[in-house]
Amino acid sequence: MSSVRPLLITMGDPAGIGPEIIVKAFAARDLAGTVVVGDAGVLQSAATRLAQHGHPAVAVVSAPSLEEAVRLNHMPSKAAQVHNEKRMVVWQVMPPLPEIPMGQVSAVAGQASVVAVERAAEAALAGLAEGLVTAPIHKQAWRAAGVMFPGHTELLQSLSARHLGCEVADVPVRMMLASPRLRVVLTTIHLALKDAIQALTPDLLLQTLRIAHADLSRELGRAPRLAVAGLNPHAGEGGQMGREELDIIAPAIKVSKTEGLQVSGPLPSDTVFLQALDPGQHPDRFDAVVVMYHDQGLIPIKLLNFDEGVNVTLGLPLRRSSPDHGTAFDIAGTGLARPDSLLAAISHLALAQSDTIPGLTRS
Amino acid sequence: MSSVRPLLITMGDPAGIGPEIIVKAFAARDLAGTVVVGDAGVLQSAATRLAQHGHPAVAVVSAPSLEEAVRLNHMPSKAAQVHNEKRMVVWQVMPPLPEIPMGQVSAVAGQASVVAVERAAEAALAGLAEGLVTAPIHKQAWRAAGVMFPGHTELLQSLSARHLGCEVADVPVRMMLASPRLRVVLTTIHLALKDAIQALTPDLLLQTLRIAHADLSRELGRAPRLAVAGLNPHAGEGGQMGREELDIIAPAIKVSKTEGLQVSGPLPSDTVFLQALDPGQHPDRFDAVVVMYHDQGLIPIKLLNFDEGVNVTLGLPLRRSSPDHGTAFDIAGTGLARPDSLLAAISHLALAQSDTIPGLTRS
Repeated sequence: MSSVRPLLITMGDPAGIGPEIIVKAFAARDLAGTVVVGDAGVLQSAATRLAQHGHPAVAVVSAPSLEEAVRLNHMPSKAAQVHNEKRMVVWQVMPPLPEIPMGQVSAVAGQASVVAVERAAEAALAGLAEGLVTAPIHKQAWRAAGVMFPGHTELLQSLSARHLGCEVADVPVRMMLASPRLRVVLTTIHLALKDAIQALTPDLLLQTLRIAHADLSRELGRAPRLAVAGLNPHAGEGGQMGREELDIIAPAIKVSKTEGLQVSGPLPSDTVFLQALDPGQHPDRFDAVVVMYHDQGLIPIKLLNFDEGVNVTLGLPLRRSSPDHGTAFDIAGTGLARPDSLLAAISHLALAQSDTIPGLTRS
Repeated sequence: MSSVRPLLITMGDPAGIGPEIIVKAFAARDLAGTVVVGDAGVLQSAATRLAQHGHPAVAVVSAPSLEEAVRLNHMPSKAAQVHNEKRMVVWQVMPPLPEIPMGQVSAVAGQASVVAVERAAEAALAGLAEGLVTAPIHKQAWRAAGVMFPGHTELLQSLSARHLGCEVADVPVRMMLASPRLRVVLTTIHLALKDAIQALTPDLLLQTLRIAHADLSRELGRAPRLAVAGLNPHAGEGGQMGREELDIIAPAIKVSKTEGLQVSGPLPSDTVFLQALDPGQHPDRFDAVVVMYHDQGLIPIKLLNFDEGVNVTLGLPLRRSSPDHGTAFDIAGTGLARPDSLLAAISHLALAQSDTIPGLTRS
């Protein structure tokens, strides 16, 4: 048995597009180093449905344990070898599910999707997996199942804190959005714009910079060059249009520099992204832009690469990425959903172990 | 003599890059339908300097009146016809200037640049010109010359109000940024983000929608399809992340619809721009996105087309566009400045009269 740790893909809400984009991803690329976590029946249904619509066949293999899943991953069946058949190993972490109606909120689907994330996260925290890629869950389905977390991130924070034996507050996280051309790290996320401005403090930004530095250092194998976007037009123009740059952003940057971080800013947010584009004209381009509020980062990311955006959670003691879209109940089951963002999320985590996932290259 | 009205290009601050990008624009394209407004000596110096740096020669011809400039425009010299020489007619609206040191703020340069704008605007308001394209001025130079207006827009508003015999407040204007692929109209501009949120009212947005509708109707020859971006993440998600969408934006949109405007929104600002891209995937794509604050519009415009962005003032009784950059004193006189944005600004106004400016096509 190989000692290479698998990447885990959680199936997401079975009533959403998660299972079908996972099947499509396996049909499109050689994902031999990855294990899907969830219910094999759900994945099999998605595969059957897609095959009926003329998509390439993917054989779904169920495994009762992660160890067995990894073993099966490295021992492809004779059929797979002879017919060059695509093959997906599912770590069955729950009793087989009943048939789930597509595109509908249900407690059963919510419960199934949360169990998949919990088991996958525990395996990653125990060092048994390289990281996890989470297919989309549905918040209302989680609520219907009595799950109190508003989303993946908070659940993973909680599991991480339990694993580390500390408070959730001691596991601060930040969302990074990564596309093939640009990375942005968000200081605030789902707050009204007014509240995001209120929430901005030197400490909050400093924490963002430290998390971004630590996580990207691991990803890049060197200290990242970070740019910090201003909050106000023209980054405040020396205090003429807002003082947050002078009172909050610059002080945080100053402290980060004394800690040895490579940070520039605050820079006007209408041009800073151009200085971080890959390929860019600048040899010393920034590796990531730290932004102050949701849309400041989401506008450029989505404009550049709508289908290839990846959501990465920074700050956790495990690596986690996810596609940059939701369950898309309106098209779930139709076979229309595209696997691009999921594939990008897999690629993102697979970069560090790219020998083992030969089909994946950074597009 | 032709009855076609000329496009006027004001020379901008003579110590900045204005004159040299104007010369480069004439060298690059056939701009026979346009007249430069300013000092012929300044333009001649720029042309000589550029020729010394190996750029194509442009002959500068001075005219004492707009009428004479138009006449000269339609009677190219023999040399121009024989040698295919590029030729620029300058309407001399001031006594010849002394030599102006490049890259320095001066009252003389400020005064010269304001006179050029005043004379050009008066001609446009009198119906003698198709519109004006303004090369960049320097705010500090205007201040040094005792000019009280912070920029072009406020000066043009004032001249328009005088022309119409009304208050400046009765000539509300909005800034539109246009690139070959996207148009955005700003509801607020140079305000701290906090203040921009405060300034947002249903009336202010309604005024933006009316101005955008009226101006773009003229430009497109039909009613424009306008999208309105939300202020908050996910456009507030039904009030869960901010109430401005419910309390301010939606009511303004509702009124605008009763007036027959084609307006959609509020839409999440991280995806609305994709729905307005040309070429876009959507046949009913939006013609423009109305945004709430500076960076919401500037981030996508600059990311898409840094060198081809055009600044258009909507709401005036004259047509006005300008390049999307400043005087760039740091590179003025070096010949490094690129004319792309100026050419885009000229193209923008020339679309309506494109027979007469054959070199101009929308790129």
